[in-house]
Amino acid sequence: MLGEPRIGDVFGELLRDALAVATGVGPRPLVGGRLPRPVIEIIERDDGLINGAPAAHYLDGPEQWQPYDHRAVGRVRGEVLDIGVGAGRIALLLQERGVPVTGLDVSPGALAVARKRGVRDLVCATVDEHAREGRRYDTFLLLGNNLGLIEGRERAPSFLAALAAMARPGAQIIAHGTDPYGTNDPVHTSYHRRNRERGRLGGQLRLRLRYRELGTDWFDYLVCTPQELAGLVEDGPWRLVDVDLTDAPYYLATLHLAG
Amino acid sequence: MLGEPRIGDVFGELLRDALAVATGVGPRPLVGGRLPRPVIEIIERDDGLINGAPAAHYLDGPEQWQPYDHRAVGRVRGEVLDIGVGAGRIALLLQERGVPVTGLDVSPGALAVARKRGVRDLVCATVDEHAREGRRYDTFLLLGNNLGLIEGRERAPSFLAALAAMARPGAQIIAHGTDPYGTNDPVHTSYHRRNRERGRLGGQLRLRLRYRELGTDWFDYLVCTPQELAGLVEDGPWRLVDVDLTDAPYYLATLHLAG
Repeated sequence: MLGEPRIGDVFGELLRDALAVATGVGPRPLVGGRLPRPVIEIIERDDGLINGAPAAHYLDGPEQWQPYDHRAVGRVRGEVLDIGVGAGRIALLLQERGVPVTGLDVSPGALAVARKRGVRDLVCATVDEHAREGRRYDTFLLLGNNLGLIEGRERAPSFLAALAAMARPGAQIIAHGTDPYGTNDPVHTSYHRRNRERGRLGGQLRLRLRYRELGTDWFDYLVCTPQELAGLVEDGPWRLVDVDLTDAPYYLATLHLAG
Repeated sequence: MLGEPRIGDVFGELLRDALAVATGVGPRPLVGGRLPRPVIEIIERDDGLINGAPAAHYLDGPEQWQPYDHRAVGRVRGEVLDIGVGAGRIALLLQERGVPVTGLDVSPGALAVARKRGVRDLVCATVDEHAREGRRYDTFLLLGNNLGLIEGRERAPSFLAALAAMARPGAQIIAHGTDPYGTNDPVHTSYHRRNRERGRLGGQLRLRLRYRELGTDWFDYLVCTPQELAGLVEDGPWRLVDVDLTDAPYYLATLHLAG
């Protein structure tokens, strides 16, 4: 098979290069060994759709953020677990404000970048692995569209249970999601339809990330409506208590620990 | 096989969207139906390397060009065939200066964009197909790294013969190339070595382009040194008479019709 990537830490390599470009420190990707090459994250979907997105936004300071990120940070209270901390843009602001925050990521390279940028408390683990460590939190952040990490109907219960296992009484989840259905593009509408025909949620994307010679394995990433989210969390340990639709189709979902 | 693209006019779709973004006219790619998505050309190499590059440069005006493009245009004389005209950035400047120029491309979508931007004489064909039309030129342009279109040892003789068949006495080729060997990156050096082991030129890249749901077939694209180029053209109808190395590793090669 031509052109198959080597499995590796795509996100870590991408962020390392993005940091080198942003700071001017360290080896940077060049075209022809001379002209700077912008760092582009490549996202493949299993139907053959491919998109490239400049990686610089992972390093954005608060002045460049979308408004929903600011509103999400405004909802934080107590000790925070920033899930999918990446290059640490959210964690850095919380730290500055004196909020105790732990950054969680499965990418060692991303954590190295977050550490270099000044994030102090970082853990390399999945939520399941981290739940076994016995630490407790008051707020779980799933920003940067990371509501997607709940994947779909199969994974959601165990993902939400892992967060509940780490939750103090009264804990909350603040999650950034996107309603995927406001499009007429047949590339997307037919993908949603095929998903449903196979018993999946319409926006249950099967993706892999690529950067230079590296790729991830294929993984599920959920883009769902607030209604679909409500369906996924019912019968579980969390209650969907608020949906902020100010920046639709993007939204912030707030969930509270039941009981 | 997950994630395989549909074969289509990648370059044309890419340029159409890049034009829509640049002009604000026509449907543009959006993230979540709201935020503008930059148009990124994705280039896969058969060893799994992948790169994304913003497409906006295909529409660059002369003030944004690299210096070698200006020097290439300064070498033009007589009637010009701009091979791989793309969105027409070079052809447009020549037209403005009153130089008779024909834009050649195999992408119908690229030609539609070039036409919309004002290029008047456009042909959708390969050089071989166009050579059968009986038109004659004094200058053949292979800019935007399009020396790569000679592909390698197998294709070069017929490609150069097609240009010779369209050449008036005293005709010239102005080609932009890049020396690929000024790198220590093992991703590239091992690719070059494997190529040579298989009897190919070191920088004979096997590529495909992708944009959204579309991909091209895999094709060869040659990145070679001036010395390798000299080897490819000897015994053929063209003489390599000048190599402008001012912007090394990029160079401009000038070839004259022999005899």
